[in-house]
Order: sequence, then structure tokens, then C-alpha cells
Amino acid sequence: MQAFEIASQPSITSPQGFRSIGIHAGLKRRKLDLGAIICDVPANAAAVYTKNAFQAAPVKVTKESIQTDRKLQAVVVNSGQANAGTGKRGYQDALATRQRMAELLGIPDHFVAVASTGVIGEYLQMDKLLAGLEQIVEKASHDPEDTFAEAILTTDTFPKKVEVHVQVNGQTVKIAGVAKGSGMIHPNMATMLGFITTDAVIDSKELESLLKTTVNETFNMISVDGDCSTNDMVIVMASGLAGNQALTPIHPDWSHFQAAFHYVCQELAKQIAKDGEGATRLIEVQVEGAPRKELAQQIARAIVSSNLVKAAIFGADPNWGRILCAAGYSAPELDPEHTDISISSVLVAKQGMPVPFDEEKVTELLRNETVVIQVNFHQGDCRATAWGCDLTYDYVKINGSYRS
Amino acid sequence: MQAFEIASQPSITSPQGFRSIGIHAGLKRRKLDLGAIICDVPANAAAVYTKNAFQAAPVKVTKESIQTDRKLQAVVVNSGQANAGTGKRGYQDALATRQRMAELLGIPDHFVAVASTGVIGEYLQMDKLLAGLEQIVEKASHDPEDTFAEAILTTDTFPKKVEVHVQVNGQTVKIAGVAKGSGMIHPNMATMLGFITTDAVIDSKELESLLKTTVNETFNMISVDGDCSTNDMVIVMASGLAGNQALTPIHPDWSHFQAAFHYVCQELAKQIAKDGEGATRLIEVQVEGAPRKELAQQIARAIVSSNLVKAAIFGADPNWGRILCAAGYSAPELDPEHTDISISSVLVAKQGMPVPFDEEKVTELLRNETVVIQVNFHQGDCRATAWGCDLTYDYVKINGSYRS
Repeated sequence: MQAFEIASQPSITSPQGFRSIGIHAGLKRRKLDLGAIICDVPANAAAVYTKNAFQAAPVKVTKESIQTDRKLQAVVVNSGQANAGTGKRGYQDALATRQRMAELLGIPDHFVAVASTGVIGEYLQMDKLLAGLEQIVEKASHDPEDTFAEAILTTDTFPKKVEVHVQVNGQTVKIAGVAKGSGMIHPNMATMLGFITTDAVIDSKELESLLKTTVNETFNMISVDGDCSTNDMVIVMASGLAGNQALTPIHPDWSHFQAAFHYVCQELAKQIAKDGEGATRLIEVQVEGAPRKELAQQIARAIVSSNLVKAAIFGADPNWGRILCAAGYSAPELDPEHTDISISSVLVAKQGMPVPFDEEKVTELLRNETVVIQVNFHQGDCRATAWGCDLTYDYVKINGSYRS
Repeated sequence: MQAFEIASQPSITSPQGFRSIGIHAGLKRRKLDLGAIICDVPANAAAVYTKNAFQAAPVKVTKESIQTDRKLQAVVVNSGQANAGTGKRGYQDALATRQRMAELLGIPDHFVAVASTGVIGEYLQMDKLLAGLEQIVEKASHDPEDTFAEAILTTDTFPKKVEVHVQVNGQTVKIAGVAKGSGMIHPNMATMLGFITTDAVIDSKELESLLKTTVNETFNMISVDGDCSTNDMVIVMASGLAGNQALTPIHPDWSHFQAAFHYVCQELAKQIAKDGEGATRLIEVQVEGAPRKELAQQIARAIVSSNLVKAAIFGADPNWGRILCAAGYSAPELDPEHTDISISSVLVAKQGMPVPFDEEKVTELLRNETVVIQVNFHQGDCRATAWGCDLTYDYVKINGSYRS
């Protein structure tokens, strides 16, 4: 029995207490470019941030907000400009955004988080943004058309959403998430924004520890191009309106809640990987038989990040030598002589050596929407999974002309 | 005054005592695929090897050869099959190649080095290869048509060669080199073979220490796609036939010899970067003002390896945000607020913030054959340079169909 149910029409506003909205404020030419999630009550909150040294202004401001009381009542997100590489003026702009939103909602400044995504090194157009905030506060609703999920996109080709329902103390608790990804996606919080809402009753510190553990195995295990951005964040808000007994690791339903939360993060991460810039395929790399968990993660990420592996999969070429090679440079201490490699369940190398396989069949399997690469080192019990996408002409096209 | 002269018609056989040859043995369909450098006398030798865990059989065998006496009299190189991921049989094949070459030349086995480049996971066609060796020993000469440099190529579009002359004890000492690169090029000895000959008198241990130091700042500072291969090696042989007083760091002409040797390695490395698969431009990244040398190297490599930076340069887009971003994720401990960035000598960001610049002019400069990116952190005295190439449609094309 699965510990939770997956909603067929996911919405970030399904958990009790949340409204959202996305509008066109004029930061981009035509598309929606400004959005917010608003909670009726102060929600317990936690977040993880990019490890890039050059953190964008909104990352700094959101950190300050959450650190103060570990509570949030609104998140404002714009696309178009990343407000990164913008120095003191950029920081002031992020503060002004937060302040105006707080003012409009009549809540303390530090109950507002801000996030930006788009071009680095351009200032926010503050007049348009501030005018947009008024509209946003007026119009925020159950957002049946998912305008929020759309307003946060850049080169993404589809909005990323997920919603699950889990039983806690015999009543339904909801967890929902939206995300944006596309370029600059790499382990350790790359250009990627994720927003998760839940109506569960759960303390901010529990929420933070759950988020950190889960992000490590989900968002941090995806790679589109190896570039970690300046702006990445995943924010979770828990309204507590489901009224369950507070969730902690000793709660009898904790494992269900944890599994549901993990699914939400993993599903958003996979949707991001699948929608990598120019991608035609989702690649899932499963590493087994490693002596340490961190090593398994490192190898899985190296394989899924290898341009040569990614280009071979785009070309539907079962070139397992490149997989072996990526495994080799990511883990110099492993012995290659025990390594087995499968591509979409067909064994292509055993104990580090070629085995005969049906090339036509594997080439066919490589044309599927999802390609699974399994590497077993037979040198321990640890495993890890990473997700990525193929490297295509369109990736080059999109990134050769992003600003123009 | 330059410490050395650059030869206009470089040849690996210019230093006294060396002959070379490249032939078509049938390992590839049509092109030259087997070559050798042969020395009239046992040459003092040193090499550096890939750090990939999965070292190809020829790498293991060459290590054994050089370790025995630190001398080499022949290097046999094939293209077509990498003899990597081929287990015990592959190792036996490499040994058999070495043995047959030694037999034909009437020298000890360990005076022969072997190197392979090509597809991973395919066995060498030993009948063709061994038959080819006889031809090679017969035909090796001053190789006026540079058949050796051609026989070692895979997806390279041109042979890489360099030759310099340096005065030692008032007489001319020659140093020459050839290399192959193309895909799978990355710091720490990626798919790349380099062969350097000199007639200098220099002890094997001095040669090894000079090679290691120099490789660190040249071959290890180039990146085409971030993948370290299983087969990389740089081998240097010194015949000693110039008859100079033995070169050591206290020799009065040491600094000249060192500068000449550095130039040879750097020039080969740059030619490899320039000829990265599908490349249209050479990218040179100069990092200055870092607190530590290793950090400067790490940042330079991260910038030159960033798919986003590489694609932007292909698109002639002065998107300095991506440069800042790559610098940021490679050095989380640096303060962004002091960072200046120039593209081909035009300042585009100062103290981590945008400065107005002539976009059209920079776009024009980005269309040049060489693009220089300068990043100054103003946080120390250390500097480093890295080389790479742009990411293009052709890279994807070549690597989506390498085996077919």
C-alpha cells in the first residue's frame, strides 16, 4: 500500500490557507512575470539556498526573513531579471519589494520572502514590479488556471507541479509543490526555484531538517548543465490548518508524511530534469554497490552530468564506454574490474568488459522518453539515483542566444 | 629577448636521434591508424597519466615500462580502439604489442611504451596491428609528411605540433611535440595524448619533475567537455644527443630550457583546446587577484568548462552573468563585491555589478578566433590561465553519433 495518494489536478493552493496568483507586470515582454503565494495565517517556514558564492539579492533577503521568526505569510517571485550581480542597489530593490508586499498585506516585513529568476546583471524594473504587487494582492485566489506556476518560468517549456494527500491522525493532510528549472541546473541548488505548501501542523525546525534531508536526495541529484546558479531556493510553508497532532519523527504517521514529502520533492526534481533546456529525454542514473553513500551520489551525478553521455543518449548511441569513463573519473578509488552496466535494463558491460547485446534493441530503448542507466560496482551496499537530460542542438541554440 | 626560437616547420623528428612514422594498418576504415616514434638510442623518459580509475591497458603497460629503467626507445600509438574497458584480454594485447615492437627493434620490452585512443570497450584487432608493426619498423624515417601526427588523430580536425630551439651551453637544443585531443578533454589528463622529443641531456628524474610541474599549468588547464578519459598520457623522451652539459635547475641555462619546454606544452594544450569537438573559438580565461594559486586554477577551469559560458560565446553573447555565476560556484569562499570582469579587454562588470559597455563592439570581439575572459577578484596575488572552446551544434552532432 502506498503511504499517500497522488492528486490528478495538482495545485499549490489545495492545502488549506493558501492562495496564489501570477500576472504580467511588464518585466518580460509578453509572458506572465510576477507571482505570489499568500497564506491566510503565518505559516511555519524553512528553506534551502544556493551554495554559489555570488548569492543574488533576493536569496539574502529571504534568508533574513526566515531567520527572524521561521515564519512566512507570502512569497513574491518575479521572472525576467534575476537581480543577481546587482550589488547594493539590487539588495535595496529586494528589500523594497519585501516591504511593499508586507505593507499591502498588513504583515511584518520578515513574513515575506522574495525570489527572482532570469538574466543576471540587470536591475529590476521597480516601478513596474511595485505596481504589480498591488494587483497581486487584489487578485490572489485559488488560482484555478495556475497562473503562479506560469509566472515563475523562464526557458521552461511546461510548469512543474505535484500534489499529494497523506493520512495523518486519520485526517487528510495535503502537500503541494511548484517549481521552475531549465538551464543552469546542477546539484547543490542550481538555478531552480521550488515552492512547497502544506496544511500539516509541523514545527519550523522539523520542517527544515526534513527539507534539508530530502533536498539532498532529490533537487540536489539533478543536473542539466553543471552550472549552479546564484538564485536557487526551495521554500516550504506549513499553514497548520489541517489541525493534526504536530508531526515529529516519533509521530506514528511520520514515515507516511516523510514519504509523501519526498515524493513531492522528487517529482518536482524529475520534472525539472526532464524539461532541461533543449532536452528530449529524461535520464535516470542508478548507482549501486558503492562503499559509501556520498560516493554513490558523486558517481551518479558525474554520469548524469557528462556531456559525452548526454550527447550519446541524444544520438541514441549505446556507448557504454562513456558511462564507464565518467564513473572512473568521479571515483578514482574504485576497482573497475567488478563493474556492471545496464542501459534500460539491458546488460551492456559485465565486470568492466563488453558483453554481446542486441544493439538495435538498445538503440530503440534509447529513443524512449526515459532512459535508465544502472551501474553496479559490487563493492558495497550503498546506492544513489540522479536525474538529468540529454544534450541537444536546442540546448546550444537556447544558450547561444538567451539574452537576445 | 625570448629565451628560445619557434620553428616554422615543426617536426617531432627534428631533435637528434628520432624517427617517426604513421601508417594505415586497418584499425580504422581508411585513415592512418598506427604510428611510432623511434629513438636511435635509449632515451631518458618520463610520463604523466590519466587520473581516471578505469585506466586503459596501454596506460598500465607504459607505466610498467617507464618505471623499470626510466628509459624508452620507442612509442607505439594506435587510433580507432582505445583498448579501455577490455579487462585481462586488453592488457594481454597491450603487452603483446609492446613485446612484438621490442623484438622487431631488438631492444628490451620495457624500452617500449604503448598508447591507444578511440572507442572504449572494443578489443584491438591484433592481427592487423602486429602486421602493421613490421611495416612501421621498416619505414620509420624523418617523416617529412608528418604521418605520425596524423595517425594518432581521432575526431581532431588538424594535427597538433610545435618545435622550439633553445641555446644551452652555447649550442642548439631542440624540443618538439605532437598531440591529439578533441573530445573528452578536461583538466587532470583527459583524452589526450602528447609526445615530446628533445635531444637535450637531462636526467630522467629532472625530466619527470619538469614535466609534472609544466603539465599542471598547461595540459591540465584545458577543458573541452569536462570528461577525463581512460587513456590520457603525455610522454617525453630525451635522447641526449645534443651533448650539452646535463640540465638541472642549477644549470645557467635552465630557465631558458624550462621556458622553452613550457612553451611546447602550452602550445600543444592550446591547439587541443582550439580543436575541441565542434569548436569554432578558442577561449582563454585569465583569473587574477585570487588568494591562492589552486583556487585561481579551480576558478579558471570552472569558467572555461561551463556549458552556459561556452554556449554564450558560440552565440557571441556578452552574457557576463554566466561568468560571474561559474566563478561563484567554483569558489564559495570569495567575496563577489570586488570582482571585475572583462571580455576581450572590454570591462563589462566592476565590483560585481554591471557597467555600461558597447554591446555591439563586444559582440563583434566575441566573433574573433580567440576570446579572452579576464576575471580579477582583487583578493590576493595569485593568478591562473585556462583554455577551452565554445559549445556548438557540431559538438552535439559529433558526440551523438561517434560510433556510428
